[in-house]
Amino acid sequence: MDQSNDVASWWRTSIIDMEPGRIGLRGYDIADVIDHAGFVQMIWLMTRGDLPSPEQARLLERALVASVDHGPQAPSIAVARMAVTCGVGLNGAIASAVNLLDDVHGGAGEQAVELLTRVVDLIRDFASPEEAANRALDGWTAAHGPIVPGLGHRFHKDGDPRSPALLAAVDAARDAGVVSGDFALAARAVEAVLSHRKGRRIPINIDGATAVIFAELGFAGPLARGLFCLSRSVGILAHAWEQMQQGGRNKGPTPPAYRWLYDGAAPRRIAIDN
Amino acid sequence: MDQSNDVASWWRTSIIDMEPGRIGLRGYDIADVIDHAGFVQMIWLMTRGDLPSPEQARLLERALVASVDHGPQAPSIAVARMAVTCGVGLNGAIASAVNLLDDVHGGAGEQAVELLTRVVDLIRDFASPEEAANRALDGWTAAHGPIVPGLGHRFHKDGDPRSPALLAAVDAARDAGVVSGDFALAARAVEAVLSHRKGRRIPINIDGATAVIFAELGFAGPLARGLFCLSRSVGILAHAWEQMQQGGRNKGPTPPAYRWLYDGAAPRRIAIDN
Amino acid sequence: MDQSNDVASWWRTSIIDMEPGRIGLRGYDIADVIDHAGFVQMIWLMTRGDLPSPEQARLLERALVASVDHGPQAPSIAVARMAVTCGVGLNGAIASAVNLLDDVHGGAGEQAVELLTRVVDLIRDFASPEEAANRALDGWTAAHGPIVPGLGHRFHKDGDPRSPALLAAVDAARDAGVVSGDFALAARAVEAVLSHRKGRRIPINIDGATAVIFAELGFAGPLARGLFCLSRSVGILAHAWEQMQQGGRNKGPTPPAYRWLYDGAAPRRIAIDN
Amino acid sequence: MDQSNDVASWWRTSIIDMEPGRIGLRGYDIADVIDHAGFVQMIWLMTRGDLPSPEQARLLERALVASVDHGPQAPSIAVARMAVTCGVGLNGAIASAVNLLDDVHGGAGEQAVELLTRVVDLIRDFASPEEAANRALDGWTAAHGPIVPGLGHRFHKDGDPRSPALLAAVDAARDAGVVSGDFALAARAVEAVLSHRKGRRIPINIDGATAVIFAELGFAGPLARGLFCLSRSVGILAHAWEQMQQGGRNKGPTPPAYRWLYDGAAPRRIAIDN
Repeated sequence: MDQSNDVASWWRTSIIDMEPGRIGLRGYDIADVIDHAGFVQMIWLMTRGDLPSPEQARLLERALVASVDHGPQAPSIAVARMAVTCGVGLNGAIASAVNLLDDVHGGAGEQAVELLTRVVDLIRDFASPEEAANRALDGWTAAHGPIVPGLGHRFHKDGDPRSPALLAAVDAARDAGVVSGDFALAARAVEAVLSHRKGRRIPINIDGATAVIFAELGFAGPLARGLFCLSRSVGILAHAWEQMQQGGRNKGPTPPAYRWLYDGAAPRRIAIDN
Repeated sequence: MDQSNDVASWWRTSIIDMEPGRIGLRGYDIADVIDHAGFVQMIWLMTRGDLPSPEQARLLERALVASVDHGPQAPSIAVARMAVTCGVGLNGAIASAVNLLDDVHGGAGEQAVELLTRVVDLIRDFASPEEAANRALDGWTAAHGPIVPGLGHRFHKDGDPRSPALLAAVDAARDAGVVSGDFALAARAVEAVLSHRKGRRIPINIDGATAVIFAELGFAGPLARGLFCLSRSVGILAHAWEQMQQGGRNKGPTPPAYRWLYDGAAPRRIAIDN
Repeated sequence: MDQSNDVASWWRTSIIDMEPGRIGLRGYDIADVIDHAGFVQMIWLMTRGDLPSPEQARLLERALVASVDHGPQAPSIAVARMAVTCGVGLNGAIASAVNLLDDVHGGAGEQAVELLTRVVDLIRDFASPEEAANRALDGWTAAHGPIVPGLGHRFHKDGDPRSPALLAAVDAARDAGVVSGDFALAARAVEAVLSHRKGRRIPINIDGATAVIFAELGFAGPLARGLFCLSRSVGILAHAWEQMQQGGRNKGPTPPAYRWLYDGAAPRRIAIDN
Repeated sequence: MDQSNDVASWWRTSIIDMEPGRIGLRGYDIADVIDHAGFVQMIWLMTRGDLPSPEQARLLERALVASVDHGPQAPSIAVARMAVTCGVGLNGAIASAVNLLDDVHGGAGEQAVELLTRVVDLIRDFASPEEAANRALDGWTAAHGPIVPGLGHRFHKDGDPRSPALLAAVDAARDAGVVSGDFALAARAVEAVLSHRKGRRIPINIDGATAVIFAELGFAGPLARGLFCLSRSVGILAHAWEQMQQGGRNKGPTPPAYRWLYDGAAPRRIAIDN
């Protein structure tokens, strides 16, 4: 057995090529990217394999900027702040916090991409966005329950302030021929149908608006979650650093005078023969 | 006690202000930053409190681009790739991996900032960069041991390919009056002194070059580590996503035919009365 | 609004009750459990709400002992060892590693409980374990793909050395009236049917054997994963501590002379107008 | 180069030896430990290399039992509960939470072992525990600041309810010749001196009491932190599992009607030429 070959090929990648003194990222020399590629372009290049156009990069950048933070009441931010008061360094605070960006908190973007993709596929078969949205919503709620990813917000009840600027940017990119606009159309159709069903406006939220951008730009659903992680890491870092400077030791979620509701067993003793 | 006040002020921040329908980041409305701020500017704004100049942002961006990846042999990258083969999602793969960017792997930038700051302070007292570098190196190794952060690389033995472009960018920024150049001077002095002591060139590595940039731009040492985490998260995400597409189940570090060296106890039995 | 009440009841638990000078765990005073409860009993008490019988605790203990380690080629163990060489402390090494105990690596126990529960339910409707196993396997593979949780092992191809002792312990507990034996019967039926289908023995593995124990003792499926985490944390800690003493800096998955297989783009340059 | 040798020995361990069909843990066959070793014995065996006596195991067990939980206001517990409301599985909730058991939250046990070891060493040179405690405290606070690990508790101001039972168990073990009692003596001397200095009783807390046990039993300081992680993982799992059953989506640290104190910049606009 040619052992050098099997060990050296146990890990296989198209992302990076290296030898002493040389680093190539997707074929581009590291000095070349340092001088000529921006950070958003690198995010695209590393995950997709080629460089984006300036217009594509700008649209992706808007989505990344929009998601950086939502305040100390967001679980991810709260975790980062508590972590540093326990002595954890910034890498550890970021790690504990990013781990929470799962299905319900950040992962909703991944699910919104899935839902919108279904709508777009149905529109290709049906003439009407309204019919497509109705069918996709029925299928989604049957499979996943009543929560629809990408719409509504329990805090920004009358509209997520991040969505209008993002959707306007998508419309402009569509008008300029950079994206098709199919996913924006799908999202608006879902918004209309869901709002009609509920009898009140259920607007597209940050997960939905960024899902529109990621899908328009061709990113697969799981990458919607990954990109949200890169974005939210900025707010996580900022809050962790700020808390590090504020101090505090072992900060719990509320002021320590508050306990919790105990609804467990009444006091009892262990039977000694047990 | 005014309870609403003590709970609502348990977490205190200058970073974000919110009410339903409005988000302000460091005073800027979210729609404003989506339209007019880039992602690198946001990284600066969120951690520092104000927007950088375009030149400052460009220099920070170079440091972020330079550090995104170092291949599947880097522990952080290996962890991310193994994680997804265990069924972990992208957020979890990023989390497990970023957690490793500690003192020895990424944290060296934080320590390099500390060392270079010492050199810069000594230069302010002594005329000679060489004396300052000598004294700072002696103090550092006495306190921390022989490993000097920011210099040398066990893989890129003759020079880290990321350093020249970064240091050239610092020099250009110094010439343009954007930064002082004090930390670049300090780093080169340390490189010269350490190389002289060792009898061979010990070049500034990625940790040292990015530390120069972070320090020139006024970022505190721990933020050097945090910014490295944001950068390396890009490579971590790319590799995790790639591995997710390649498949594999429970991939260990080497092909499974290889075991490990066992140097423990010989076979023995538990005495039943124990 | 009675604010003290809503904040103090935001978190609700039956597990622990506290006031200065007193801690009650599931109603038992902390001094009482320190003196009269063992660690395995505590694991049961904290997750289930009541103390187990000595026989129940012994059976759970066997499952916990069996899963503590599977060597440095297991991704979780490899991650822990690499982490400490990056400067991460034992808590961080454990964290990064336990995060990997997901669907494919440890989580299989949770899925095995689900499969076995299906078989047990079918046995209650059908007289024959063989029919029940056939139907459950068909349903499982249709829903989840060809990998059946709890059976087979790519390293211990002829039998997982952990299974016989665990299953013998279940049989003894069944004979003593401690458990019903229904899940052990189900697991053996699945093993027989799957082996017949494949034309070779596909034995119950550690995930299957511990799933039998957890299910016989009444633990819900997700707790199978949680309990595996507690067990494997022991091996993770041991390996992390050992690596900490061995030293090493930034250890990657293989000796550094090995690279990886690069199958990406050939060298190319960024077009400057991009 | 003998490649099979260098890859197969890249990881070296005394903990586990394996080949298909056989697992040896510290020399003991896995079937042997499943049948004859308890979980606490395994914790000792895996980290220390040999089996403990029953008395040693019992003392270690008390320390593990005592530390399992401290309620939803403990940052580690709060993180675990918030994590599951974000969709994170039990492994991920445990991981994010255990990561917080750092210097200030759990790591204090490691530092208490260090302080007590200093006292014990000084007692070996000085006849008086009081002098030793005084000198050790002075040295500690000079190096680390005013917080003394192992003493006092901001919630259990008049005495940590976990300490008496633990210290009584150490005294009994000393009387039985199982441990020397040196570290218990040291801890009580530090408690007396510190209380005298402060003018009020500053009792030994859980970190101090468990540090006494770990040190009496010969565990190195960092393992005090690791063992605390194993113990607290039990409470973390229990709370995560309970929260999973209670439900909740994206639970933040306080009821959502509460925001936070914003003390940042007033509203401002980005200058368009920036």
